[in-house]
Amino acid sequence: MKKIIIVLLVFFAHNSFSQNIDSIIINKFFSEALSNNLAYDNLRYLCKNIGGRICGSTQSEYAVSWIKNLLDKLNLDTVFLQELMVRNWIRGDKEYAYISSQKFGKIEVNISSLGGSIGTGSNGLFGKVIEVKSYEELFEYDKDYITDKIIFFNQHLNPTYLNTFRAYGEVAKFRVAGAMNAAKLGATGVIIRSLTLSNDYYPHTGIMSYNDSIKKIPAVCISTNDADTLSTLLKLDKELKFYFRTNCYEGEEKTSYNVIGEIRGNKYPDKIILIGAHLDSWDTGEGAHDDGAGIVQCMEVLRLFKTLNISPNHTIRFCAFMDEEVAQRGGKKYAEIAKQKNEIHIAAIEADAGGTTPFGFSINADDIVFDKIKKWSDIFFQYNLFLIVKGGGGVDISFLKELNVPLIGLITDSQRYFDYHHSPNDRFENVHKRELQLGSASIAMLVYLIDKYDL
Amino acid sequence: MKKIIIVLLVFFAHNSFSQNIDSIIINKFFSEALSNNLAYDNLRYLCKNIGGRICGSTQSEYAVSWIKNLLDKLNLDTVFLQELMVRNWIRGDKEYAYISSQKFGKIEVNISSLGGSIGTGSNGLFGKVIEVKSYEELFEYDKDYITDKIIFFNQHLNPTYLNTFRAYGEVAKFRVAGAMNAAKLGATGVIIRSLTLSNDYYPHTGIMSYNDSIKKIPAVCISTNDADTLSTLLKLDKELKFYFRTNCYEGEEKTSYNVIGEIRGNKYPDKIILIGAHLDSWDTGEGAHDDGAGIVQCMEVLRLFKTLNISPNHTIRFCAFMDEEVAQRGGKKYAEIAKQKNEIHIAAIEADAGGTTPFGFSINADDIVFDKIKKWSDIFFQYNLFLIVKGGGGVDISFLKELNVPLIGLITDSQRYFDYHHSPNDRFENVHKRELQLGSASIAMLVYLIDKYDL
Repeated sequence: MKKIIIVLLVFFAHNSFSQNIDSIIINKFFSEALSNNLAYDNLRYLCKNIGGRICGSTQSEYAVSWIKNLLDKLNLDTVFLQELMVRNWIRGDKEYAYISSQKFGKIEVNISSLGGSIGTGSNGLFGKVIEVKSYEELFEYDKDYITDKIIFFNQHLNPTYLNTFRAYGEVAKFRVAGAMNAAKLGATGVIIRSLTLSNDYYPHTGIMSYNDSIKKIPAVCISTNDADTLSTLLKLDKELKFYFRTNCYEGEEKTSYNVIGEIRGNKYPDKIILIGAHLDSWDTGEGAHDDGAGIVQCMEVLRLFKTLNISPNHTIRFCAFMDEEVAQRGGKKYAEIAKQKNEIHIAAIEADAGGTTPFGFSINADDIVFDKIKKWSDIFFQYNLFLIVKGGGGVDISFLKELNVPLIGLITDSQRYFDYHHSPNDRFENVHKRELQLGSASIAMLVYLIDKYDL
Repeated sequence: MKKIIIVLLVFFAHNSFSQNIDSIIINKFFSEALSNNLAYDNLRYLCKNIGGRICGSTQSEYAVSWIKNLLDKLNLDTVFLQELMVRNWIRGDKEYAYISSQKFGKIEVNISSLGGSIGTGSNGLFGKVIEVKSYEELFEYDKDYITDKIIFFNQHLNPTYLNTFRAYGEVAKFRVAGAMNAAKLGATGVIIRSLTLSNDYYPHTGIMSYNDSIKKIPAVCISTNDADTLSTLLKLDKELKFYFRTNCYEGEEKTSYNVIGEIRGNKYPDKIILIGAHLDSWDTGEGAHDDGAGIVQCMEVLRLFKTLNISPNHTIRFCAFMDEEVAQRGGKKYAEIAKQKNEIHIAAIEADAGGTTPFGFSINADDIVFDKIKKWSDIFFQYNLFLIVKGGGGVDISFLKELNVPLIGLITDSQRYFDYHHSPNDRFENVHKRELQLGSASIAMLVYLIDKYDL
């Protein structure tokens, strides 16, 4: 009996000691992150000195060398590039569009080519407009009626959902496949209402797809305010026409890179905790929330471990993925090499939900791993990380799923995210230093716990 | 046995039915709030057409009639004014200040008189500056040394706290009592570093106090960036002087009003659930987050009940309190009358923490009440309201404490709040429609549950 008590005492003593140490270290992550400007200054540089950096662009090359250079300065154990080929879609000169109405005259509107779209050619495209809110509505029309028309997908995001990602997810299909579906019926072009809950004049771009068996037609997004104008005028003037000229085209594929930096594990150097974000962004904004925030947060995690002199058991590897926005070649290449090399990843964490206040983690893993993370809820909760839920980890790390890696995504407050997402408004000024840094510290905390207690 | 089972079945059936109804209604609050612009448009009007509205000002009078008019239109059961007297502190012409250094020349800086301060007179105040970071540091100086000097309280808010209200609370004592304490030692004026975690050029004002037994000296706040400049230059030039001219003064007290609107309870009309926010604001900004947001949120709660045709058991009363910022006369008057009339308040809820994403509720009540509210955590949690904690309810409702009323405050994400608080930057543009409306629906949900299940 005495022995049992001693064992229990030792157990509890060790347990509470350990919890105490954990609390102290986690508190240091937050204190250091909240009182340091480096991540925020890095984001400013990335946004203002490099700017929008779609894969294949000069800016994306600059971003690769910038981040490689920063990682070199962090005094890590390993820094290297992972070569890959990327598509090289080029926007060309700024797009131009107007509504032409005999009743209302010529009204210029703000549009932006969707990523991957073909251009209109220098003469542009001019035609009557048919507004639809769903594919069902589109397919009710006869092919004859649609032929030579421009299809205007004007579906709003549902404002009643608490999580704006849900609203976005529901409507993204028009941006992705609107052109394909409209072309089936003979349409000459498509206009997509920007995927945002905000009423603004910014076109919110994003990737779209073609199908080789269907004619390729140009696709643009239109700002929500201009979409409302177009919709209103269409009701008043059925003869209204729309003109747009886009100059985008697909260039030759280019060589690019994932950029990787590691702090080697002192006990299990071959076991990897991956943290990642994507370095590329759309070209029309500065890629501040999407995903400059994630990039500087992950770099900050490495800095926190170095600055606080925490030597991890496992290797902490940061990957700045190239090409999340266009074809996810960076994520695919990373997984391909991890598989080739039989690398062991004990977890992969992605930060790609914007630099707003973190709410918790979304976990794509089996129940045992999920429950283990869920058991840390008390300490997460102390830092307002209240959501530990099952869900996706992130696009770049998703390709590690077949290697059975637990995938984890940082969840953030989503209310403002789609105001900026893929638009000229995704600027440094719209990221808040403290909100950003709470994300950095949250990821550091999770990495620390996984490193210490494994999954 | 059979009877027991039937009773149990009926009980469970009723219970789950009831929960189901609750879920449906609460979901309607959120859906309606998130898809309606009225509260946001009201806030725009209050900020842009009325603007800053310190008690005693013409703007505050305009705000009273504006809100009275809006409440009249809401088709409530009762709308009335509660008369009170308010102080009438007047800023006068814009303040002017500069650093004067033989080494560095004349450098203009942004200041703002603290509320309640005396002015410098038209000649302004010119003198050497002594920087301190604490009262301990101040009181180490000899009176001879301080006499005729200007004391510069340059304490930063602690950035390492998760909750910025905590950081603010720690340092507010310099703004409130800095002048009193400096005057004791013969200082001629005080400069207070603005109470914000943001690095900006906005002076963040706020109330200060005098003591009749101590000489009154002028007090101003200085923007954080200018405070840093002043501090740096002081290190390089001990002979540096500071000039400031302020034109504020105390006018005659004025009549003003709390504005009250009620939906009468259908079962217990004499039992009141109070929701409140303050209508007055500082004069230098638009009073958007502080506390226009709370005002339009509470009005939205009334609208939600009316629009969704929910007839409450208890009376839901909204009070737009006058004079939270200066002397809390509105809150005091409200409590005084409630006491006189022996009114029964089953709860008082205040929204005065800005229009950012709501996190939950802070409860000042006994354990029984606290536990009852805590038991609703599951439904709160579905709407990301994860914090149900013991704490203050709000300044305006605090005077109901002696009547033993459970006091509840809406907790919001505090990261950005003090960027705006009491500054020219507290503008409509800095309030996000969805974040604002999540607050409205959160209060409606709480009112609904209190109304249905009592406390």
